Amino acid sequence: MTRSVFVLAALSCGLCFGQAADECKPNVLNVPEAKYPCVYSDNRAMFRVIAPDAQKVAVRIGRGFDMAKGPDGIWTVTTTPLVVGFHYYSLQVDGATVADPSTMTFFGSGWQNSGIEIPEPGDVDYYRARDVPHGHVAQQHYYSRITAKWRRCFVYTPPDYGTNAKAKYPVLYLLHGWGEDETGWYTQGHVDFIMDNLIAARKAKPMIIVMDNLNAVKPGESAALFAGRGLVPAPGAAPAAPPAGGTRGAQAGRGAGPGGRGMTFNLSTFTDMMFADLIPMVERTYRVLPGRENRAMAGLSMGGMQTFTTGLNNLDRFAYLGGFSGSCGGRGGTFDSKTTCGGAFADPAAFNKKVKVLFLGIGSVEGPGTKAFSDALTQAGIHNVYFESPGTAHEWLTWRRCLYDFAPRLFR
Amino acid sequence: MTRSVFVLAALSCGLCFGQAADECKPNVLNVPEAKYPCVYSDNRAMFRVIAPDAQKVAVRIGRGFDMAKGPDGIWTVTTTPLVVGFHYYSLQVDGATVADPSTMTFFGSGWQNSGIEIPEPGDVDYYRARDVPHGHVAQQHYYSRITAKWRRCFVYTPPDYGTNAKAKYPVLYLLHGWGEDETGWYTQGHVDFIMDNLIAARKAKPMIIVMDNLNAVKPGESAALFAGRGLVPAPGAAPAAPPAGGTRGAQAGRGAGPGGRGMTFNLSTFTDMMFADLIPMVERTYRVLPGRENRAMAGLSMGGMQTFTTGLNNLDRFAYLGGFSGSCGGRGGTFDSKTTCGGAFADPAAFNKKVKVLFLGIGSVEGPGTKAFSDALTQAGIHNVYFESPGTAHEWLTWRRCLYDFAPRLFR
Repeated sequence: MTRSVFVLAALSCGLCFGQAADECKPNVLNVPEAKYPCVYSDNRAMFRVIAPDAQKVAVRIGRGFDMAKGPDGIWTVTTTPLVVGFHYYSLQVDGATVADPSTMTFFGSGWQNSGIEIPEPGDVDYYRARDVPHGHVAQQHYYSRITAKWRRCFVYTPPDYGTNAKAKYPVLYLLHGWGEDETGWYTQGHVDFIMDNLIAARKAKPMIIVMDNLNAVKPGESAALFAGRGLVPAPGAAPAAPPAGGTRGAQAGRGAGPGGRGMTFNLSTFTDMMFADLIPMVERTYRVLPGRENRAMAGLSMGGMQTFTTGLNNLDRFAYLGGFSGSCGGRGGTFDSKTTCGGAFADPAAFNKKVKVLFLGIGSVEGPGTKAFSDALTQAGIHNVYFESPGTAHEWLTWRRCLYDFAPRLFR
Repeated sequence: MTRSVFVLAALSCGLCFGQAADECKPNVLNVPEAKYPCVYSDNRAMFRVIAPDAQKVAVRIGRGFDMAKGPDGIWTVTTTPLVVGFHYYSLQVDGATVADPSTMTFFGSGWQNSGIEIPEPGDVDYYRARDVPHGHVAQQHYYSRITAKWRRCFVYTPPDYGTNAKAKYPVLYLLHGWGEDETGWYTQGHVDFIMDNLIAARKAKPMIIVMDNLNAVKPGESAALFAGRGLVPAPGAAPAAPPAGGTRGAQAGRGAGPGGRGMTFNLSTFTDMMFADLIPMVERTYRVLPGRENRAMAGLSMGGMQTFTTGLNNLDRFAYLGGFSGSCGGRGGTFDSKTTCGGAFADPAAFNKKVKVLFLGIGSVEGPGTKAFSDALTQAGIHNVYFESPGTAHEWLTWRRCLYDFAPRLFR
């Protein structure tokens, strides 16, 4: 009986079934009870915007999708299939670039974008809450003498941190990308669930993860906007963001709004701040194992560039380095072990002895540069791990997968 | 010399000085580097929006302010003087209600509004970071058997929690208002700095503060939207939000956008969830002092109503109750100690013996209802504390001040 009803329904509907409205599932990042935007099983997304008096409304998600106005004053559009993963997006309403009021907002490109998550096929839940012991992500304020300002970072402590009162832990310093901030890894990245699940499965060692904000300038130091490539110390160390391609292009971009939306950073100031203020605060406040073999650093995109800039120049302080879609290489140019990345790879034997893991991750949609860089390093005798995330772009699903692969390799 | 230059400048400028553009200071809640919106010393705010092709743009902050379009396609408006404190606000661009991309966003009225802070006169810094020991606000996930869902709360632990490894602490359960969520108290409310400063000054005892989300329904339970007054168990217990007046009217309101934007709550389900899931999780996870004399509950607006509903019916579990611009009374009707608030005040002697602090706070701009309720309670012999915040409305500056007055009274 049930089956015959289903057959009847399928016959009477025909091809329309694939576009039935009830198949479109609300985006998991919507505000409570909002049904739109929604995502079809083939990864198309439908957006709806109330703008009764507007002349032109579009969604910008990687590219623009013009919306059409219905008789009820509601604008709608269904996109072409989108790449799986987390995407920032924005609306354009008669020339104003704004967030969609139907979703929670996420700090990227220097402002609070909307977000949509295109689910991975299958029951992928390594970055979801499971019934395992949970660690904590805590807000940590501290005063920086280098920047002469209060700063904020977030700190993940593993599930047993509160109960295992005498245990000390190794530390991973984990950075966001251009235009993002210290909220990115625990909000878009789900660092806590990834680590809780890895630790529960005994795939990763319990560790503390410190997520700071890349933006740091000294008082009076001119705010170096992204264009300030002169600050990058090593040859070949071109900024890793903003990228030319990938769905991260969905960001509205700096200068698109009425505010400044620029990011103020200086790679060497961040390094100074990290050693003078951040690391001492962490080691004073948390129960931390000492020494370079208990200290790792990683970051995504511009945070990967920062990691390699800070780490390769301070190998007495770090034994593990990770670049997720960003490092000091991988963006073209000729590899020369004597000069690339400031000559950090000139002595492979010494390098390999010091650096326990050098990790290079990338989404397969991002292009071949990182693979070529990894191959050149291998050719030059530098041990490194290359990780490629299948079918993902320059965005957070790539970086969740990078962390999921990278974290188990640490502190062994 | 300096003086004569000043006189000359004042003469040549005349009245224009009071409106000089450089006097308008960027809103502290703007995204990094955004200069607008800005606030004049007389509490007028100037807004700027890029919307070159729009026909009509307005700011809604308590009331609407139509913007005017300049030749550069930028819309501007300067408001009349605003009440001091934190205000949600939104833009209307050709009929679309959206957040201003120039500010960080804040969850209120069920979506991510923009925010602006009109500074208090003087060097008020009790809710700012000072150079004192800092506690932590941590994200805490837990599974609720009552709602059959994962939930999130934030937990403040005092500065010495990490180092004083054997100490146990009393707990304050602190709730947000209608349309807000568990992020409100640590984001809009600055609960961490308020408590850090009070504890450093030895004005409040070190305590744990748990900030949960009011929205809770059982599986299959129909989502009770705000209109569902039938859920309020006690006579006179009208919902405390949304208010008719005050700057909180700045919120765009439920239904203004394309999404649902409704809030799903049920006062008795929250109470069940709190006793079955939340409190046991807290007492299992944190070092908590047992018993009613170490447990307080407070909330703002609808959170105050929840506090009185939960607390007055469970005095064996709480010795301290606080309603900040919200309780089971204060919104008119005749006070009758036998029936008001479900008859909780019928036996003053017994009540006073059990309840160590019954706190009623309100902003002076909100109206006289809470004062009348407090007076009626006093008349009936019920000990209570009435706190009035001068010059503030139904919004977060009132509630920061309420917490600052309430917290020192706890656990004595």
